[in-house]
Amino acid sequence: MKKNYSLSGMPDYNSLENLKRDYLLSIIKKQFESFGFLPIVTSALEKRSNLIGSYGDEGDKLVFQILNSGDYLSKIDIDQSELTSKKLSSKISTKALRYDLTIPLARYVVQNQSKLVFPFKRYEIGKVWRADRPQKGRLREFVQCDADIVGDTSLWSEFDLISLLRSIFNILGLTNMVIKISNRKILEGVFNSFEEKSITFFDFCIIIDKLNKLGLEKICDILSQKGFSEYEVLKIKDLFLLKGMFFKKRDYLLKNFKVNKELKNGLNELEFIFNQCEQNKMLKSVDFDLSLARGLDYYTGFILEVPSKNNQSISLAGGGRYDNLTHKFGSKNLSGVGLSLGLDRLFLELESFNLFPETLVSNLDVLFINFGLKEAEAAQLYISEIRKFGKSVELYPTDLKISKQMAYANKRLVKFVVIIGENELKNKKLTVKNMQTGDQKSMTFAEFKKIL
Amino acid sequence: MKKNYSLSGMPDYNSLENLKRDYLLSIIKKQFESFGFLPIVTSALEKRSNLIGSYGDEGDKLVFQILNSGDYLSKIDIDQSELTSKKLSSKISTKALRYDLTIPLARYVVQNQSKLVFPFKRYEIGKVWRADRPQKGRLREFVQCDADIVGDTSLWSEFDLISLLRSIFNILGLTNMVIKISNRKILEGVFNSFEEKSITFFDFCIIIDKLNKLGLEKICDILSQKGFSEYEVLKIKDLFLLKGMFFKKRDYLLKNFKVNKELKNGLNELEFIFNQCEQNKMLKSVDFDLSLARGLDYYTGFILEVPSKNNQSISLAGGGRYDNLTHKFGSKNLSGVGLSLGLDRLFLELESFNLFPETLVSNLDVLFINFGLKEAEAAQLYISEIRKFGKSVELYPTDLKISKQMAYANKRLVKFVVIIGENELKNKKLTVKNMQTGDQKSMTFAEFKKIL
Repeated sequence: MKKNYSLSGMPDYNSLENLKRDYLLSIIKKQFESFGFLPIVTSALEKRSNLIGSYGDEGDKLVFQILNSGDYLSKIDIDQSELTSKKLSSKISTKALRYDLTIPLARYVVQNQSKLVFPFKRYEIGKVWRADRPQKGRLREFVQCDADIVGDTSLWSEFDLISLLRSIFNILGLTNMVIKISNRKILEGVFNSFEEKSITFFDFCIIIDKLNKLGLEKICDILSQKGFSEYEVLKIKDLFLLKGMFFKKRDYLLKNFKVNKELKNGLNELEFIFNQCEQNKMLKSVDFDLSLARGLDYYTGFILEVPSKNNQSISLAGGGRYDNLTHKFGSKNLSGVGLSLGLDRLFLELESFNLFPETLVSNLDVLFINFGLKEAEAAQLYISEIRKFGKSVELYPTDLKISKQMAYANKRLVKFVVIIGENELKNKKLTVKNMQTGDQKSMTFAEFKKIL
Repeated sequence: MKKNYSLSGMPDYNSLENLKRDYLLSIIKKQFESFGFLPIVTSALEKRSNLIGSYGDEGDKLVFQILNSGDYLSKIDIDQSELTSKKLSSKISTKALRYDLTIPLARYVVQNQSKLVFPFKRYEIGKVWRADRPQKGRLREFVQCDADIVGDTSLWSEFDLISLLRSIFNILGLTNMVIKISNRKILEGVFNSFEEKSITFFDFCIIIDKLNKLGLEKICDILSQKGFSEYEVLKIKDLFLLKGMFFKKRDYLLKNFKVNKELKNGLNELEFIFNQCEQNKMLKSVDFDLSLARGLDYYTGFILEVPSKNNQSISLAGGGRYDNLTHKFGSKNLSGVGLSLGLDRLFLELESFNLFPETLVSNLDVLFINFGLKEAEAAQLYISEIRKFGKSVELYPTDLKISKQMAYANKRLVKFVVIIGENELKNKKLTVKNMQTGDQKSMTFAEFKKIL
């Protein structure tokens, strides 16, 4: 067996895959820009202390840490008796690979605060890394496409993110995507409406987040075990069984739960979003899903998630509002809201529904056959002319047998093969073979330029 | 003082810098493609063993190594008595950040050999990392733009790389760049022509490589100290003092040094290149520079380097032929030749000569002023229409005082500000302010679409 020299979960992409990724990226970029977002690029590496502690204990484990350079051991004291991996890491690593594009954004905003125009609307497209177990749709190195608005608390920005996602999906041909939305405050309101709480809201979220994976019965069992009363569990069960539009669910919530500040605010905020979706004929693209509970240690209001049509537990996009992100970097009160699209997952989604344009082919416009020095020298002059008007063209690098050169032409999907042999040199013409039709004609260079 | 949360030598780029970088990248990509190169993307992380040992002892030190995940200490035995950083690293790190795009290419070629079309022409543009001391023009995280031809030994490919560089520089407006070229075999031939060698060819190269930095006198001193005879040092001195065209230097070399196989082959290969440059009127863009000795543990024939016009010791591009690169991955006899452009250095070069187009401005086409819910709702419908035909447009997210919204419009370099107040709502018109001229007019949406 051949030795494997590459890392699992960290794929390479060939030229066709790359063309498809570029197609996806160009649409995403274009839409980000038409919504007023401007591109920034942040460093792929961050100070370790920027990342560790930002994603919870589970997240910390997924951060790739970089070993310090040089003779790092000579610079530290190691107390052998208490040597654990965690402690050692904190001494021999001061850098880490970014886990997402949001912490880098927060750092960027704080560090450039005086120069930025607020509300600050930026997008960033770049690789991020997670030391996760690789599986289909879950890589350890992948590209995120993020758009965020920092420094404003308007609900219009939240609505804008929904419009933005919908535009991108529509242009890509993913016309039936459902954007699941919710608001952290609602779940918090529900949680707070219970009298006695045996677990924290954070733990409650972890349980609710598993609804899709474990099913409602199992979730209810867990809540019972955690000390929720039979009555409370029943109310939660009814809530999650409830089908239909936001407005129906809202009425149910207001009627059946003790209405506190969180519940009321959360519902009001979502009502604005749903009203705007209705006005803009987008109701079919959104769904109120109270079980959205991922990232709730981080999001403080609006949240969204777009599951793959092939697998509900894989999300193509996620996002929400975060009020406290710049706090870590010594700045207060900068609320942000944003979304993140996973390029690699979108790629798989489009592939699965055959949605990439068939015109995406990595070919070569013209190949000049190499018949030896004199002929190749003549070809070279034409070649630089053709390149000037933007066509891709090359000379076959050696004067191999013509059959071998033609085999190369076929594999490279060449459109036109040009032959300059002794005769062509003499009468200053080219023999041009159209590889699609098989036609072969003698013509002047001016004529060839016309058909190109 | 504000705390610094970012890493030195690993910069972020704001939106204007990004537009400029995109401008550079689009030209480079376009040229790579017109020369028949196709894009691939390889993973940013490599197996540590792919990298360590590939760049010499000095290079090894510059590779960023990644700490293994989880409780890595529990999986290894540490013999305390012989604990060095180097030994520990080899036990607790199995991944590293790529140092260039060439080793990843070699790995990619070997792993996909059966699927690739040879000669394999690929380009890749991506970040690489080096644990170097940061200084102007030398970053620890930077973008390389590489084009390589693997699986052919033709001198035409080498000439093509020169044409390619020249095209890129010309389009960028860097019209006087000089591409320094040489051939490892010539320097090897010179070295081998000496009778007694007290140092290795590799060490000889390290000395010659310092010519630009230390000056000729100092280089000659070092060679004397290293055991070269007075006569040999004199010959080397004369050789490096020699000015003028390749053909003159060639004649000098043939006359004054013992002609061995390396010298003869090296000169023949370069002669082909210079002949083609002459035929294609490119002689002014190339210069034979025997002191090019960087990377000679790696390059086996042709080498090129393009120094910055501002600082001869900073190279904007480098490249050459390598015959043994795939060997590391268990494959033989795949000769490659390629070049690498440094995006960040090119950026600085263009900035220093003011060569970025003035049209590169990060602006916003249209801003709708927010006067409250009803007006904003009306605006929203127009906004989605405008976005459909590709213009960038946004609603100011909150109904702040108009002066604040206009201040934002000015800072964002908005082209048109649109006002929809009570009157405009009534008579279904827009008030449009052209921010360049200051003109303000009332018009229908159809009229506004026309002027956009």
